Amino acid sequence: MTEEAKLNRDVAVIGVGQTKFGEHWSQSMREMAVEAGIKAVEDAGISGHDIQMVVGGNMSGGLFTGQEHSSAMLADYLGLNPIPAIRTEAACSSGALAMRVGILAIASGMYDFVAVGGVEKMTDIYGPQATTALSGAMDYETEAYFGATFPGIYALIAQRHMYQYKTTREQLAMVAVKNHDNGFLNPVAQYQKRITVGEVLSSPLVADPLRLLDCSPITDGAATVILAPADVARKYTDAPVYVKATAQASDTLSLFSRRDITTLDATVEAARRAYKQAGLAPKDINLAEVHDCFTIAEICAYEDLGFAKKGEGGKLIQSGQTMLGGKIPINTSGGLKSKGHPVGATGIAQIIEIVKQLRGDAGKRQVNGANTGMTHNVGGSGATAVVHILSRDR
Amino acid sequence: MTEEAKLNRDVAVIGVGQTKFGEHWSQSMREMAVEAGIKAVEDAGISGHDIQMVVGGNMSGGLFTGQEHSSAMLADYLGLNPIPAIRTEAACSSGALAMRVGILAIASGMYDFVAVGGVEKMTDIYGPQATTALSGAMDYETEAYFGATFPGIYALIAQRHMYQYKTTREQLAMVAVKNHDNGFLNPVAQYQKRITVGEVLSSPLVADPLRLLDCSPITDGAATVILAPADVARKYTDAPVYVKATAQASDTLSLFSRRDITTLDATVEAARRAYKQAGLAPKDINLAEVHDCFTIAEICAYEDLGFAKKGEGGKLIQSGQTMLGGKIPINTSGGLKSKGHPVGATGIAQIIEIVKQLRGDAGKRQVNGANTGMTHNVGGSGATAVVHILSRDR
Repeated sequence: MTEEAKLNRDVAVIGVGQTKFGEHWSQSMREMAVEAGIKAVEDAGISGHDIQMVVGGNMSGGLFTGQEHSSAMLADYLGLNPIPAIRTEAACSSGALAMRVGILAIASGMYDFVAVGGVEKMTDIYGPQATTALSGAMDYETEAYFGATFPGIYALIAQRHMYQYKTTREQLAMVAVKNHDNGFLNPVAQYQKRITVGEVLSSPLVADPLRLLDCSPITDGAATVILAPADVARKYTDAPVYVKATAQASDTLSLFSRRDITTLDATVEAARRAYKQAGLAPKDINLAEVHDCFTIAEICAYEDLGFAKKGEGGKLIQSGQTMLGGKIPINTSGGLKSKGHPVGATGIAQIIEIVKQLRGDAGKRQVNGANTGMTHNVGGSGATAVVHILSRDR
Repeated sequence: MTEEAKLNRDVAVIGVGQTKFGEHWSQSMREMAVEAGIKAVEDAGISGHDIQMVVGGNMSGGLFTGQEHSSAMLADYLGLNPIPAIRTEAACSSGALAMRVGILAIASGMYDFVAVGGVEKMTDIYGPQATTALSGAMDYETEAYFGATFPGIYALIAQRHMYQYKTTREQLAMVAVKNHDNGFLNPVAQYQKRITVGEVLSSPLVADPLRLLDCSPITDGAATVILAPADVARKYTDAPVYVKATAQASDTLSLFSRRDITTLDATVEAARRAYKQAGLAPKDINLAEVHDCFTIAEICAYEDLGFAKKGEGGKLIQSGQTMLGGKIPINTSGGLKSKGHPVGATGIAQIIEIVKQLRGDAGKRQVNGANTGMTHNVGGSGATAVVHILSRDR
């Protein structure tokens, strides 16, 4: 396998904007995308006329709303015609892929200003249909068709992790408690509400051992960032945030094909590539937004991203070091669990949280001295993983 | 609007492969994608280990088969893990967008060898469901929801074109006849069968004035090309085909919002950008694959791409100049009409036909002295248009 090379141009984030995450009965997919897009353009202090391309992550507009071709919808309703518009999709990592394509487009030399967004409207269909739509992220022929659901898939991972590494039911619950503590401080989070370990443990069982409060919710939302060449970023903002790494890896679509279901090899490989691109190690990361679609996923992410040794993710959450004020605060936004998980928008919302933290603009959730942050966005049960490293340092 | 700039690196096509287009009851989406991918890798004379990224166009795996996340599926079943895999979507132009992202990725400097594919499995659901899935390409809230179908949308365009420019019913039929004449010579075409103007005119009425034989079919199929930096292309093939332009533009998602429904402004703008990038004019193009989802669409494309004056597309088909042996042969592959239209694969199949023609490898369909060709891929009723120019000249 040939290693990837350096980008021809460095890229910076110069603007961010998002809707509140939640159940938006009065807003359609296009209205949310427009709200996030306008906020990002205003934040960047540019005009819509400066934007040369739109890239939009959207997992399943077709199954959730009937609407495919959402990239053209974005360009149209944002008043950006005739610029090119591209939709990217890799299940719940669709947003991070939009980020990657935006970065590649600027590095290619062809485009300077690219609006990169993500959107998902999930609440227009009823719950079981949403579960069916989401199952398009796993191997439909060999998993979903035979009745597998995502809580079931991640429950298998949790069972194995608990068996092999003595990870406890309480440690899983602590992930949810921490993320709700953070989401409580985030005005755009779906659930601004604290919960206790006892509440997690007594919430309804979904797929043993995972309970309702171990699972990220069904969410509507949109998020947008404006990318520009690093060279010009300071013209537009006093606090540009530079992209130090954009890395992605793939693994088997089905969980049962993996060599070890407690390790997301795609995350390990994407992280390896990202650290190499940035010339950094896990100890250099001040905070991270990781893909906590279920509580067990955050524990695996600690290990796969190098923040804990293999099997010691449960100990890391228990140590308190991933809380605000800890050594490596994780999911200061509230994560997918508490901020919400509009699947196509999540990858961009993660970028936005890191940008706000690096700008010192995260309010009560601010991580003191945050200089370098990471995002980790996963598609399916780990067939796709995307890792970005962002920094105040050029 | 800021104009796009030159790519940092030139790109070439070094390998192509596709399945036969048709109704493949014995092949799933993944099996078709694997067949096309392997053929392309073999044609390029490289190993799968050389490939650093996969980009896959797929319009609606979710609605057609339940399977989203098809990019990871491609990487997995092609044995290419852990390289990154990105799905692109813009309705029927999803394939051409994959081509664009592959080109941008190489120009970015990060990747050298990128496999760019397209796939669609459309026949696993019954006809009316396929029509519903396809309607996700138009404005779902303001068109599809109120009963619009694509034959209906293009029928409106045809009615207006016939009223305004005296385009005749027979001229529409001639597009289908020409494309079936070409498809008759193409071993991978869905319909290798000649038809007559009389047969078109007596085929069942679908949406007045469009009849069954004015419409492209429901098709299964996959197509893949291998891209590499232009600098190294000659190491892999004696007949590299260079990408001279990759251009894309957007227009309103809904037909009724257009200033003139007989002109696809996105095509006009994408063509303007493509000609500018390549430093070429319509007279320099030796042949083109254009988006003939309905016969009227090919007539509009003649005008919007600059091969005929506005309103004179009907005269151009009647003149015979777009037939094999004419001044500007169009859709030598058989086009969407006769070769078939697996929506996510079509944009890549168009590239493949041009590559084969420029290599002198198009058998009985060969255009003598073909040096420079164009592809034109449309999403929806023209909300997205993508134009590529390929040439034997670096």
